[in-house]
Amino acid sequence: MGLGSHLRRGEAHAEVHALKMAGGEARGSTVYVTLEPCSHRGRTPPCAKQLIEAGVKRIVAACRDPNPLVSGRGLKMLQEHGIETEVGVLEEQALQLNEHFFTYVAKGRPFITLKTASTLDGKVASYTGDSRWITNEEARAYVHTLRHQHQAIMVGIGTVLADDPSLTVRAPVPGVHPIRIIVDSQLRTPLHAKVVQDGLAETIILTTERADKQAAARLEQAGVTVIACGDGKRVDLPLAMQKLAEREIASILLEGGGTLNGAMLAHGLIDKMVLFYAPKIIGGAEAPANFQMTGIEKMADAYRLERVQIETFGDNVGIIGYPVYPRREA
Amino acid sequence: MGLGSHLRRGEAHAEVHALKMAGGEARGSTVYVTLEPCSHRGRTPPCAKQLIEAGVKRIVAACRDPNPLVSGRGLKMLQEHGIETEVGVLEEQALQLNEHFFTYVAKGRPFITLKTASTLDGKVASYTGDSRWITNEEARAYVHTLRHQHQAIMVGIGTVLADDPSLTVRAPVPGVHPIRIIVDSQLRTPLHAKVVQDGLAETIILTTERADKQAAARLEQAGVTVIACGDGKRVDLPLAMQKLAEREIASILLEGGGTLNGAMLAHGLIDKMVLFYAPKIIGGAEAPANFQMTGIEKMADAYRLERVQIETFGDNVGIIGYPVYPRREA
Repeated sequence: MGLGSHLRRGEAHAEVHALKMAGGEARGSTVYVTLEPCSHRGRTPPCAKQLIEAGVKRIVAACRDPNPLVSGRGLKMLQEHGIETEVGVLEEQALQLNEHFFTYVAKGRPFITLKTASTLDGKVASYTGDSRWITNEEARAYVHTLRHQHQAIMVGIGTVLADDPSLTVRAPVPGVHPIRIIVDSQLRTPLHAKVVQDGLAETIILTTERADKQAAARLEQAGVTVIACGDGKRVDLPLAMQKLAEREIASILLEGGGTLNGAMLAHGLIDKMVLFYAPKIIGGAEAPANFQMTGIEKMADAYRLERVQIETFGDNVGIIGYPVYPRREA
Repeated sequence: MGLGSHLRRGEAHAEVHALKMAGGEARGSTVYVTLEPCSHRGRTPPCAKQLIEAGVKRIVAACRDPNPLVSGRGLKMLQEHGIETEVGVLEEQALQLNEHFFTYVAKGRPFITLKTASTLDGKVASYTGDSRWITNEEARAYVHTLRHQHQAIMVGIGTVLADDPSLTVRAPVPGVHPIRIIVDSQLRTPLHAKVVQDGLAETIILTTERADKQAAARLEQAGVTVIACGDGKRVDLPLAMQKLAEREIASILLEGGGTLNGAMLAHGLIDKMVLFYAPKIIGGAEAPANFQMTGIEKMADAYRLERVQIETFGDNVGIIGYPVYPRREA
C-alpha cells in the first residue's frame, strides 16, 4: 500500500510518493487518483510513465486534467500500455478539492476567494471607519485558515491606509505567509507600511501606467514588486489577474473593502465567497458596505451564489458559495 | 392524568382544562405549570382556587407571574392551603415560551418581533424598489408561521404604497388573520388599498394629530381604525405601542422597511429579530437597506443580538436573536 499527496509546486506529484511508499506492492495494484496522471515532463517527470514502469494494473481517476492541451493524454498513455482506466468517480468532490488549480489552468488567472466580515446590515465598518472587531474569535481564526489555503492575499489601498495590516497568517502550526497584493492605482502605499517594511512575505503592488514613476522606484527599492496594469485611472483588474497568473499565483484570498469587492464582482473575477456575519447592527448610510457597486435593477437579476454552505462560528454565521455570473446586456 | 393549554385570551386557562380532563385523579396529584397559577378573578375564575378545590398535592411552576401586582400571590394562596410549591424549573424555556405575554405585561406594550428578508449586502429591495423575491419559498413559508404566531402585523406606509400587500396568513391550516397595523404619519394610505378594502382582518392606522382630519374620517368610514399618536411630524412610536397595548394587542410582527426598522430599533422597541438572508447581492447605494438609521460610531457600541439561533431554509439563512440595548449617552 502507498499514499501520497502533492504538497508544493515543483516537487514530486502524489503518484511518485505513493509508488515509493508501496515499493514492490505497486505491481498489479489499483491506483486511485484525484486527477488524471500527467503525461508530460514539466517540473517533475511524467507520472503516467512511472505508473507504467511500476506495473500497476488499474487506474481510477476522479477527473481529467483541466488543461485542454494535455487533457486525456495521460489516460491514453496508460491504456496503450494495457492499464485499465476509469474516470469520473467522485468527480464533483475532486473538482472542488482542486478548484484553485483547475481555475488557474482553465481561466489563466488565479482562483479568487472573497472573504468579508459584515454586520447584519451589510456594513464592514462604522461611518467613522471603525471595524474592530465585527466578527468573533472563532470566525477570525478561520480567516487565518483561509489565508493559509491561498497563495496570496489581496486588499485595496484603503485597507492599508486605514489599518496598516501585516496580512500574515497567525496559525498554530507555522506556515509560509502568503504573498501580499495591494491594489493601489495611485501608489499611495506609504513606505513605512508594514507590508513594505516587515519583510515577512513578498508584497506586490498593482497599479497603473499613470502612477508616479518615482513613487514606484522608491517602493521597488524597499523590496516591493510594482506591476502596472493598464493605462486607465484605475487598475485594470482582469489584466492584473492575468499578470499575477503569469507569476504563477494560482489562488488569492480577496480581503478587500466594498469598492474593490464590487469591482471584482462586476468583472466576474470572484470564484468563491466566504461571507461572515456577526449579530450586530451598526447603521449609517455613510458606513462602508461589503459590496459597493452600481446596483442591479431587478431582484431576479441579482448576483447569486450556488452550492451554498452555511457554517456557524459560535453566534457568527459563515455563508459560503460560488457566484453565478449571468450574461448581462452591456 | 390531565393536560391543558391556554389557547385564546378570555377563555379558560390551561389549569382548568387539565383539571377537567383529570377529573377525580386530580386529588393528591402533582401539577406542572409553565406559569404561576393566577390568584385573581380576571376574565376567568382564579386557577389557584380551582387547584385547591380539586385537592392537588403539589405544584411545580416554571416561573412566577410577570405582573408585579400579582406575582407570587397565586403561589402564596396555594401554600396557605397546604399545597407544596416549587418554582424555577426550566424557567428560561418557559420565559421564552411566554415571551410575548411577559413583555406585554412587564413593559405595558406589545412584544415586537422584527422580520426582514435581505440580500447578503443588507438590501431589502433593488434601487428601483424591486423586492420580489429575495428569499426562497421555504423562508417565505416560515414568515406565514411567524405571522400566525403574532396578534398583529405592522408595516410602514412605504410598504403599502409600494406593494399593496394584504398582510394575511397563508397557512395550510386556516387561522385567524392578524390585525394589520400601518405606520402612516401623513395618512397616505389609499382608500383602495387591500388593507382598507379586503375586510379580511382588522386594520389600524397609526398617525399623528397633524394628519388630515378628513382623510382620517374617510378611512374610518371605510372600516379602518385611525389612532393619532403624538403631535409631532412622525408617529410617536413608544406612545403608539402603548396605545396598541391598551387595545390588548400583546404581540406584533414588524415587517417594516428600513426606515421603520431603524426608528423602532433606535427607540428600543424591538424585542426579537428574525432576519432572513438569501445568497444574493444586488448592490446600489440607493437600494434600501434593512436598517436605515443614524450610524453608531464605534463597532463595539453596535446593537447586538444575544441568544442567537441560526436556522437554514434551503440555501437561505435565518438569524434569530434578541437585541441588547446598551445605555447610550444622549
